[in-house]
Formats: sequence, structure tokens, C-alpha cells
Amino acid sequence: MQGKLIVFEGVEGCGKTTQIQLTNEWLQSLDIQVVITREPGGTELGIDLRRLLLEAGKNPISSRTELLLYAADRAQHVEQKLKPNLKQGKFVLCDRFIYSTIAYQGYGRGLEMDLINQLNNIATAGLVSDLVFWFDLDVEIGLKRKRSSGEIADRIEQEKIDFHQRVQQGYSELAKTYPEKIVRINASVSKEEVQQQIQDKLKKVIN
Amino acid sequence: MQGKLIVFEGVEGCGKTTQIQLTNEWLQSLDIQVVITREPGGTELGIDLRRLLLEAGKNPISSRTELLLYAADRAQHVEQKLKPNLKQGKFVLCDRFIYSTIAYQGYGRGLEMDLINQLNNIATAGLVSDLVFWFDLDVEIGLKRKRSSGEIADRIEQEKIDFHQRVQQGYSELAKTYPEKIVRINASVSKEEVQQQIQDKLKKVIN
Repeated sequence: MQGKLIVFEGVEGCGKTTQIQLTNEWLQSLDIQVVITREPGGTELGIDLRRLLLEAGKNPISSRTELLLYAADRAQHVEQKLKPNLKQGKFVLCDRFIYSTIAYQGYGRGLEMDLINQLNNIATAGLVSDLVFWFDLDVEIGLKRKRSSGEIADRIEQEKIDFHQRVQQGYSELAKTYPEKIVRINASVSKEEVQQQIQDKLKKVIN
Repeated sequence: MQGKLIVFEGVEGCGKTTQIQLTNEWLQSLDIQVVITREPGGTELGIDLRRLLLEAGKNPISSRTELLLYAADRAQHVEQKLKPNLKQGKFVLCDRFIYSTIAYQGYGRGLEMDLINQLNNIATAGLVSDLVFWFDLDVEIGLKRKRSSGEIADRIEQEKIDFHQRVQQGYSELAKTYPEKIVRINASVSKEEVQQQIQDKLKKVIN
């Protein structure tokens, strides 16, 4: 039996983390084995790479370097964590995957889509996700939520508002292009209502 | 005026570091502006990546991840150090470049050459070296030199002898394939004689 790779995507403050926790609790209540993970930072090496990628105030990282570091994090994650857990039949709930690279490095930074796709292919080595939830939320609301949480803003969150607008635009176009793959979640409602949308969709995958 | 990118390549213990120092002294005595650098680790970010790549005894790094990390180090190095210094007309003496990736990750690890070339192209963004010195030395002699230096062996040096033999084979084939680009240096003679071979070749580039 092969597990399922369920990916959670969206702009800063869209509520992914909370919803991953709620989804985990619900799946476990159904006796399904679940693993929660994230990119970047889902492996031991990845934790070091996440720090290099997100720590603000260090030397500037060039866009290509950034893209390659995300790809390195992903290659290690696919090999050491995603593939082994999927092989054991688990449900893997993954905070960000290749769609983040398309949205942030492609639409946000303006790197060529060809380059992005090349690196996504190298990093995933053929692994594809089973389902993608895109948390559709107004960028300004998301950033406000994030700021009011009291966390220190990382290097990506510190980008100007139009960077985040381009990222949101990227997600929106991806969802239009791959409607059978990417499920749009209305993330502007209460967390109970967001969770309900996720469970409604997941019920079809479980049965 | 555009500078020159001079690359030094070869197996562990082949004498690159010493020869880069001697070449630097000689070029400076001719009033040529020189910068010494290396891969991995030629930038601030690169120093962190070098540590991740070479520290032994940590979790295993997958071959693809390793390749992507070297590419990330190179992309940052090209952007932040090589291109700016070459633009200022300097002679850049670089310890390892794309040929190391071909020899170590291609021949050594057995990754497909197509993948290696893709990543070398992405990382260099069009920058090519002007001259490559390949220090041809028997692998066992090199490793013995390295061990007797008293340094702690890094993750690459700890590889088995046949890994290093494949790397040496890779360099040898590269030198045969690109004789106009890669200059073979007999690295088994005294350091004065090795330096003489380098100066003889460089004199043609300077004038």
C-alpha cells in the first residue's frame, strides 16, 4: 500500500500550520497513520538550509542561489523523508512543495519558469503529490495575521507587498491551470469552516 | 579590461593550495592584481555550505542534494565574487570549479552527465574559465600526502580509494577531451618544478 502526499500551499499567514495540525488530529481519529513535515526544513540537513534561507539580515542571497538551495532541501526531503514514509503507507501532510517554488521564485522573483521546472524535476526525482490545498487569502490580511502573532519576520516575509501580490497571483494562476490537482480553499472564513472544506475533500481520497 | 579566471583542479593532496600561493606571489611580483578564492566556500554563504558539505559524521547527504548544494555555492560565488573581480580586470585564482563537479559527482558518484551539465550551466550563468590547470598525481600519493599533513579528513577524503580513482579517471578524460582548455601539470615533481610548468603556461596568457 502506497501512502498519500498531501500538500498545503499559500501566502504568509494563510493558516496552513493550524490546518495541518487540525487535519492531523482528524486523520488520526480515523486510525490513519500521519506524518507532518515541511519545506524547507523537513530533514536534519534541511533545518540548516532553512536557517540559511530564512534568516534575515545576513548577506544577500542571489535569486539563483536561493532557487538551488530550495532544490537541495527538497532533494534531501524527497529521498530521506517523503519517499520512505509514503512507502510505509502513511499520509504525509507537507507544508509547501514545488508549487511554492513556482509561486515565490517564479512569479515572486521573476526567474524563468523553465529553470524552475528543471530544478523541481531534479529535486523531486519523479515524486508527485496526490492532492494540493491552496489557501486562498488576501495578502494583506495574511501579513497582518502573521505580524500580530508576534513572531519575528523572516527574510521572505520582509519582502515588499508587491512581491507577495505576485506570489498570490502565481498561486491563483496555478489553481486555474491545474484544477484537477489543486483544490482552492477559501481561507478567509473561520478555522472550523476552513477545516470543514479540507475534510470534505479528503473524505473522497480516503474512501 | 576583463580579468582572467584561472582554475586549479585535481585530486586530494595534489598540491593545488601550495601552487595557488606561489602563483599569487609570482603574479604580484609582476604587478598583476590577484584574487585567490575557492569552491566550495568562496563567499560568506559558501562558508556555511562548505561546512555542511564537508563535515564528516553527520547524516548522509543524498548524491542529488550534494550536487545541488555545490551548484548553490557556485551560483553565489559566480555572482558575488568571480564576476565582480573579473570585471575589475583582476586575475582570479580559483581552487576548483565546474570540472570538480564533473569529476567528483559525475565520475565519482556516478550521477548522469546530463544532470551535471544542466546544473553547471545554471550555476555559472554563462561564465567560463580562461585556463584550467589539472594537477595530475597518483591518487594514493595524494591521499598519503594529505594524511601526513595532520589535517582531519573531510567527508570527501574519507571516501574509499576506488571513488578517488574514478575521480582521477574523470580528470584524465576531461583533459583528453578539452586539450585546448585544460593544461595537464605533472604534479609528481618538486614544488619548484610544478610552479615552473604553471609560469611557463601563464606567461603566454599575460603577454
